[in-house]
Amino acid sequence: MTAIVNVSLKAGVLDSQGKAVHHALDSLHFNSVTDVRVGKQIILKLNETDKTKAMADVKQMCEDLLANTVIEDYEIELV
Amino acid sequence: MTAIVNVSLKAGVLDSQGKAVHHALDSLHFNSVTDVRVGKQIILKLNETDKTKAMADVKQMCEDLLANTVIEDYEIELV
Repeated sequence: MTAIVNVSLKAGVLDSQGKAVHHALDSLHFNSVTDVRVGKQIILKLNETDKTKAMADVKQMCEDLLANTVIEDYEIELV
Repeated sequence: MTAIVNVSLKAGVLDSQGKAVHHALDSLHFNSVTDVRVGKQIILKLNETDKTKAMADVKQMCEDLLANTVIEDYEIELV
């Protein structure tokens, strides 16, 4: 089973990386861009077949390591 | 319109960040994890209404800036 975890900064938290990318896109004349947010996508291969167990495990991994839950949100998708 | 760009290392390219995360998860006793790949997710807000034009623009942004196409692949989703 594969878990896709998307970690992104919470709304309201300054995204300096996103600002830098936005500035670079402007300088390359991509003027249709109004905002840029940059996050992480973590793809986990699991040797777990039970979806409920897998979701609980991955949620715990996010809480313990993959996301800084003070300033980041995470979404988990099992495929 | 919003574009979600997922940038990930090509298969076969060593993912040192993924290896580090995998090692950390092991040390936290998450033993069901067999592989970890870490990539970027870039969320672009566009003031463009034409989907075809938006897709072409974002593709060009990936080629020019957002992805290092020598070692990275990218996927674009318009929502």
